[in-house]
Amino acid sequence: MDRFTVNDIPHNEALRTPVVDTIVRHASVRKFDGSQPLPEGLVTVLVAAAQSAPSSFNVQAWSVIEVADPALKKALDDLLDQEGQINDAPLFFVFCADTYRLRQALGRRGWPLQYDHLDLLLVTTIDTALAAENCAVAAESLGLGTCFIGDLRLKRREIAEMLKLPKGVFATFGMTIGHAAKRNPVKPRLPQSAVLHRNRYSVETLERDLARYDEMMIRSDVYKGRRERVPGLTPEPEKDTVPYGWTEHTARRFASDHHSPPGTLEFLRDKGFQFE
Amino acid sequence: MDRFTVNDIPHNEALRTPVVDTIVRHASVRKFDGSQPLPEGLVTVLVAAAQSAPSSFNVQAWSVIEVADPALKKALDDLLDQEGQINDAPLFFVFCADTYRLRQALGRRGWPLQYDHLDLLLVTTIDTALAAENCAVAAESLGLGTCFIGDLRLKRREIAEMLKLPKGVFATFGMTIGHAAKRNPVKPRLPQSAVLHRNRYSVETLERDLARYDEMMIRSDVYKGRRERVPGLTPEPEKDTVPYGWTEHTARRFASDHHSPPGTLEFLRDKGFQFE
Repeated sequence: MDRFTVNDIPHNEALRTPVVDTIVRHASVRKFDGSQPLPEGLVTVLVAAAQSAPSSFNVQAWSVIEVADPALKKALDDLLDQEGQINDAPLFFVFCADTYRLRQALGRRGWPLQYDHLDLLLVTTIDTALAAENCAVAAESLGLGTCFIGDLRLKRREIAEMLKLPKGVFATFGMTIGHAAKRNPVKPRLPQSAVLHRNRYSVETLERDLARYDEMMIRSDVYKGRRERVPGLTPEPEKDTVPYGWTEHTARRFASDHHSPPGTLEFLRDKGFQFE
Repeated sequence: MDRFTVNDIPHNEALRTPVVDTIVRHASVRKFDGSQPLPEGLVTVLVAAAQSAPSSFNVQAWSVIEVADPALKKALDDLLDQEGQINDAPLFFVFCADTYRLRQALGRRGWPLQYDHLDLLLVTTIDTALAAENCAVAAESLGLGTCFIGDLRLKRREIAEMLKLPKGVFATFGMTIGHAAKRNPVKPRLPQSAVLHRNRYSVETLERDLARYDEMMIRSDVYKGRRERVPGLTPEPEKDTVPYGWTEHTARRFASDHHSPPGTLEFLRDKGFQFE
């Protein structure tokens, strides 16, 4: 199965390069088979792939921390309630937005940072994500499974301490990598017409697209046993018969602070980012 | 040439999948050969690749606008002083961080957004970047050249108007795609030891890494004729004999507001993002 099949997308088969094939087959892997050794030199190749991603001003404002120490892996798994996903992953990377090096370059000259601070946060976040996606795609081309660990956001302050992140650096997300013990199906995405616009942003097809996608997600069982509860907003579990597709799930996710990190602004201020 | 050669990285040749090969050969393409037609169905495949990237909470908080209208392309090229790079690109995408759909999902239910606002900005920016990198890698696997247009940041407000971006949506970067008229060499990156850390962030090798990289960049001629000027800080052009490597270039870039977008915070506030 792949994106084309799952989302029923007619396409030009001639454009299916090995790269396209790898990308459209992506599904996150959360269970790893630790008995199969990782190939020798894997980290070198993954970092080379990550470093080959574009970077604004070639500033390369990201770092990756390979967490190899078993005690540290276990501590991060516990901290984030990952039920072994981090602990059992043969390879665990923490990708960090990193403005430390550019601050060093300025510091050597005694010059102040004059660049727009909020945009710098975007630059460093984008650099990190581009690099990480290259890493993931490269790993998957080697037959490995990957999973981004976005939950790092919930404990950024603790993680910064555990990984000794200096000023200007914060953990953006993690990535578990290894041979899959279990492969998940490719998840349906929004219809292309919902995300692709021509010349101008258009909401013309949005209602229809959301309705189609809700149906698709309900059929897919992705949310089976995963109904979000928002105290005061959603019905009691036993009375919760609301059709549960993407819009309902997304509304519940974002109408609650249950999955929300605490005080990102204050944390990033403490880490040297400015907002004014 | 590729990342391994340019950065002189010994590696396990067995790990060079077609995907790794495509990724490590990346160099931005800024001149396009418009005489070669793009393959039929290209956009469909690129968007399928983009949509196959991971997304936090499966929220898919990004959109892409294909700018096909010649007048609009020309207007964006002029606005951003791109000297034809956008205008001459057979395909021009504007990638947008997009929280409109999730706001719609909340709005249908009449629920407020309770998720941490600054983290939501990171979520949407990361989603956009992951999708865009998949798109770029897929395009390059088809023999096409790509270039991220980060300069969109300089005119976000004007672009939001031109592309009719609604609340919760902003242009993150553009991407030009087409057959290359001219290929640039693969750009050297920082030594791996500068970006890869083990268990804890380490600055142990940083000074040596920066010195090595400065030498490498000076040798590479990347900065030839591209010395940044920062009035009051850098010497007059004719007296500017400072060794000009990555650290000097980066310091000059960020000690100046010359390449900095104006008022990102105010703009994003106007677009419905909150910072408190």
